[in-house]
Amino acid sequence: MQLGIIGLGRMGANIARRLLRGQHEVVVYNRSAEKVRALETEGAEGVASIEALVGKLARPRAVWVMLPAGDATGRMIAALAGLLEPGDVIIDGGNTFYKDDIRRAGELAGRGLHYVDVGTSGGVWGLERGYCLMIGGDAGVVGRLDPLFGTLAPGHGDIPRTPGRSAADDRAERGYIHAGPAGAGHFVKMVHNGIEYGLMQAYAEGFDILKSKASESLPEAERFELDLADIAEVWRRGSVVSSWLLDLTAQALAGDVGLSRFAGEVADSGEGRWTIDAAVEQAVPVPVLASALFARFRSRQEHTYGDRLLSAMRYGFGGHVEAHGGGEPA
Amino acid sequence: MQLGIIGLGRMGANIARRLLRGQHEVVVYNRSAEKVRALETEGAEGVASIEALVGKLARPRAVWVMLPAGDATGRMIAALAGLLEPGDVIIDGGNTFYKDDIRRAGELAGRGLHYVDVGTSGGVWGLERGYCLMIGGDAGVVGRLDPLFGTLAPGHGDIPRTPGRSAADDRAERGYIHAGPAGAGHFVKMVHNGIEYGLMQAYAEGFDILKSKASESLPEAERFELDLADIAEVWRRGSVVSSWLLDLTAQALAGDVGLSRFAGEVADSGEGRWTIDAAVEQAVPVPVLASALFARFRSRQEHTYGDRLLSAMRYGFGGHVEAHGGGEPA
Amino acid sequence: MQLGIIGLGRMGANIARRLLRGQHEVVVYNRSAEKVRALETEGAEGVASIEALVGKLARPRAVWVMLPAGDATGRMIAALAGLLEPGDVIIDGGNTFYKDDIRRAGELAGRGLHYVDVGTSGGVWGLERGYCLMIGGDAGVVGRLDPLFGTLAPGHGDIPRTPGRSAADDRAERGYIHAGPAGAGHFVKMVHNGIEYGLMQAYAEGFDILKSKASESLPEAERFELDLADIAEVWRRGSVVSSWLLDLTAQALAGDVGLSRFAGEVADSGEGRWTIDAAVEQAVPVPVLASALFARFRSRQEHTYGDRLLSAMRYGFGGHVEAHGGGEPA
Amino acid sequence: MQLGIIGLGRMGANIARRLLRGQHEVVVYNRSAEKVRALETEGAEGVASIEALVGKLARPRAVWVMLPAGDATGRMIAALAGLLEPGDVIIDGGNTFYKDDIRRAGELAGRGLHYVDVGTSGGVWGLERGYCLMIGGDAGVVGRLDPLFGTLAPGHGDIPRTPGRSAADDRAERGYIHAGPAGAGHFVKMVHNGIEYGLMQAYAEGFDILKSKASESLPEAERFELDLADIAEVWRRGSVVSSWLLDLTAQALAGDVGLSRFAGEVADSGEGRWTIDAAVEQAVPVPVLASALFARFRSRQEHTYGDRLLSAMRYGFGGHVEAHGGGEPA
Repeated sequence: MQLGIIGLGRMGANIARRLLRGQHEVVVYNRSAEKVRALETEGAEGVASIEALVGKLARPRAVWVMLPAGDATGRMIAALAGLLEPGDVIIDGGNTFYKDDIRRAGELAGRGLHYVDVGTSGGVWGLERGYCLMIGGDAGVVGRLDPLFGTLAPGHGDIPRTPGRSAADDRAERGYIHAGPAGAGHFVKMVHNGIEYGLMQAYAEGFDILKSKASESLPEAERFELDLADIAEVWRRGSVVSSWLLDLTAQALAGDVGLSRFAGEVADSGEGRWTIDAAVEQAVPVPVLASALFARFRSRQEHTYGDRLLSAMRYGFGGHVEAHGGGEPA
Repeated sequence: MQLGIIGLGRMGANIARRLLRGQHEVVVYNRSAEKVRALETEGAEGVASIEALVGKLARPRAVWVMLPAGDATGRMIAALAGLLEPGDVIIDGGNTFYKDDIRRAGELAGRGLHYVDVGTSGGVWGLERGYCLMIGGDAGVVGRLDPLFGTLAPGHGDIPRTPGRSAADDRAERGYIHAGPAGAGHFVKMVHNGIEYGLMQAYAEGFDILKSKASESLPEAERFELDLADIAEVWRRGSVVSSWLLDLTAQALAGDVGLSRFAGEVADSGEGRWTIDAAVEQAVPVPVLASALFARFRSRQEHTYGDRLLSAMRYGFGGHVEAHGGGEPA
Repeated sequence: MQLGIIGLGRMGANIARRLLRGQHEVVVYNRSAEKVRALETEGAEGVASIEALVGKLARPRAVWVMLPAGDATGRMIAALAGLLEPGDVIIDGGNTFYKDDIRRAGELAGRGLHYVDVGTSGGVWGLERGYCLMIGGDAGVVGRLDPLFGTLAPGHGDIPRTPGRSAADDRAERGYIHAGPAGAGHFVKMVHNGIEYGLMQAYAEGFDILKSKASESLPEAERFELDLADIAEVWRRGSVVSSWLLDLTAQALAGDVGLSRFAGEVADSGEGRWTIDAAVEQAVPVPVLASALFARFRSRQEHTYGDRLLSAMRYGFGGHVEAHGGGEPA
Repeated sequence: MQLGIIGLGRMGANIARRLLRGQHEVVVYNRSAEKVRALETEGAEGVASIEALVGKLARPRAVWVMLPAGDATGRMIAALAGLLEPGDVIIDGGNTFYKDDIRRAGELAGRGLHYVDVGTSGGVWGLERGYCLMIGGDAGVVGRLDPLFGTLAPGHGDIPRTPGRSAADDRAERGYIHAGPAGAGHFVKMVHNGIEYGLMQAYAEGFDILKSKASESLPEAERFELDLADIAEVWRRGSVVSSWLLDLTAQALAGDVGLSRFAGEVADSGEGRWTIDAAVEQAVPVPVLASALFARFRSRQEHTYGDRLLSAMRYGFGGHVEAHGGGEPA
């Protein structure tokens, strides 16, 4: 079927490509024309403005917006809303905060427009493996777009079926779900990313212990010369901790076990933060997910003011002068 | 090759079975004779005492002890040590604390006996899928036992090769590693379990947020009727959080999304605790792994004394009477 | 000087009383007239409506609103705004979210009204000891109200002076500060409460360890028959952990060392949650403050869904049947 | 009464001084003679060897060992045990691990010697304010030493009495307790220090949020120019978070609000770590105390290996190149 796509960053461009490979008709727009031209060579129809994009699409139109969450997405949706007609649908495939989805869907509904939010996981691997899609919006509209979602999703692949599942609705088994009304897609994706932070930090801490046990700062009698690349590799087979993140860990360690290319300042995105906000709002204890986020915050600071305050208190009550405190406090 | 196995619990019995299927010769002993007889019908040679077991094995002997970590294992190894001869090897496949391995290996070395510690992951799935093995001990002795380890491990299977790995030592790719000297196997297994706790808790917290968002205690306007079984299922495909633990989660939720069979009191084992102790000893910050352990501790208490103390302080400074405090404090 | 007070709950009534004792002129209004009459007997002028209250006050008026944070406060301020005249000031002494203060101050400024937010700490002790006040708003307006703040605050008392403080502005030493523009007062109070949660939880966990070491579930050889009331008491003298919260702990334990009046379900308020939200927004790692909040969330649940999920995973990979799981899962 | 003191570091010397001021007779030994001579000028009797110290004391002797916990203390007690006679008592006033106390007390009992462990809090302030003492050992022996403990402890001072306390045993109100048998004193002191870490970290995190809110990296509209020294000061009066640690914080900030003398690398001692080990051993959830310890570990590392691993995973699944990663990973 036909889809307009706005935003040809890595994610948007690959979504266009995967749809083209699935024989869908794709009309693409991007602020920089270069990326439009690249997609044209792969079979997309390129346009130079969103007005042109809207003009190329048959009613009811479907337009997938794939821009950075926040202002860029908000402005684009507002502009599109001025061009589209009742019955058309705007799909936000980015990482929008789910409460913004709910508000936006309400505003668009007032103009007869539909809004579908799609949490999209898959990263650089999605083009080949397919994207895991978590979709929010009106059931009828989501159903109308099913051919697109079915193409973007991974499909059954060779992943073993989960015993005990009924076959009634096999969309989850093909890699996409209709999670609920507007906002539900991004809500599920948000929690997905929160979990991801926790999983990553669990591996990070475990490998930190292993690394530290192999450290030359330990007396030789207490040290184990552990091969971290081999450890990651062996856990991929038969162990309880096998996962895709472990596969990536094994890959990174196989290439450079010292990870010397990485400085250790770790970014975080809105979804990790919103997960904690949601947990706080819902009174759900999430010590692991929060600790994982805080570890990222901490990774980006050399020393916190709080750390210096700890030293100051220690000096105050015990006269302790911290080793690297730059001289005896007066 | 030939192996004696002591302890035919689920793990020991399945290890015997997998070796028998691999055409090894297995002599088995268990305190209760019933389990010995069961293995005999599958091709093992059963014996009624450890003396008999030692008598059946050709020198240099190899005996795999598969008993609960702690006293049972310690006593059995001490008894075996009195029966074996120089050059023989005792394999501890249980969940022994790695410092006990180091001490024990030293004691046995004084008698000319070898000691190999094998951290074994695989649970009830190991018989079919193979066991992930993390092995500590003398390299020569570990090498001598290689046919056994190769049979027990999963092998390459259909798991994609990690790009960038050299083919020099492919044991990790076949599911087992020689991690280092005595203790190193159980050290790596210990950290493996620590990570496992963290991973599990990350999923648990994420699903708690989802569950809470679907709760009828929320106003309908704030609620999403999320299908948790579908969410677990869809994340198995194309998403960053896919893992074996997620497969198991999907399976549990497919059967009973309310998890009503489970009360929520979660056990923990030595390895999760030792991981934290090791991190503390090595001064490694492990907020996620520790939080995961504490969540299990907490799950087994109805209310902590500390919680009551919080209420008492709140009453003290603010006159707050906690809702369920059983009446106005005097 | 003259002040109108709206809301005669425990905090509002005691603020009125402390001002009356300081020879200020206080006009009070409360939805239920009974509390108004009580204050009248102590020297306040009571009124039956906010219109009457506004009518009694000389310009420029000052009205202190002391209502539960949220809708009640918002509605009252909106109503007052319709009655007051340019130059008048509304003081919000409740626990309002600081971003609401900023928005509200802007709205009121458009009508020529001033807004002052006062974070007020002191609980049931404030009437006698004085209230610690954290004040946000325009410096000139805060200055105009100084006689009120000076009376409400504890004053120098017999607390030793902090060495090294300059005497330029001694308000902090008398127990109140002008923290900054509108919102700054409640921001500081919010963080104050976040810290309070962390402090309380630190004591709670420490006493939990002590209690557990004295538990009859331990073998007698490992047990210490600790007297928790004596421990709290002794730490009040000469120890690094002495604090007002410890005084309250000692008091609670002196009365009932088993804390049997308290069920252990601990409430939390907006400020503890907003502290975490603020930290997340500002990318500040706050593992202790967040853990303290989560412990309260957890205290109000018997078992989490996440805990049950942990058990389900354990059953899935290891066949572990959790002790209280209500029978063997199928 | 008469006491021998071994070890004249800051703590040992001040304990000697406080006893001298209380008219006790003190015989002192220190490895470096200079400190012995200093104490002689203040009225102590100095000796040049532990043999001489033992020779100066009347039976039953009491010797207070005040050395760094661990090997130094262990060796000194072993040496003393060879010189003392049945009925004599060795007091360990250092920070010994409580399980070492229990073992040591048992060994000494075999030789008819008594062992008393004293957890001592007070830091550089103890000389003037008195020391908070947590004492383990045989009740009769502890009773015999009561004059010493009564002098060292702060006494009632001007701290308000805790309502509801019975007057039967007023030692806790005078600043020392007999906590239980050998080891109980150091156990209580250990938990005391664990709590101290939690309290300190709670303040540190709170001030970090305040500092960050005042940071010039924020847009001016979101910033509050908070005066952190004033905030610490005001909280000392009437607020729930007042404490001795807050007094010290106010003092540090009054002198240098930027805390520029402190680098932010924070040491930790055995007791903070043992508290976590004890909690893990006793299955007590201590998220706050553990987080506080981990924050100190983290403060001493620039970046963790785990942080780099997080970046490596992010690169692996999303092609994310972390800002400070030192160039594009290949």
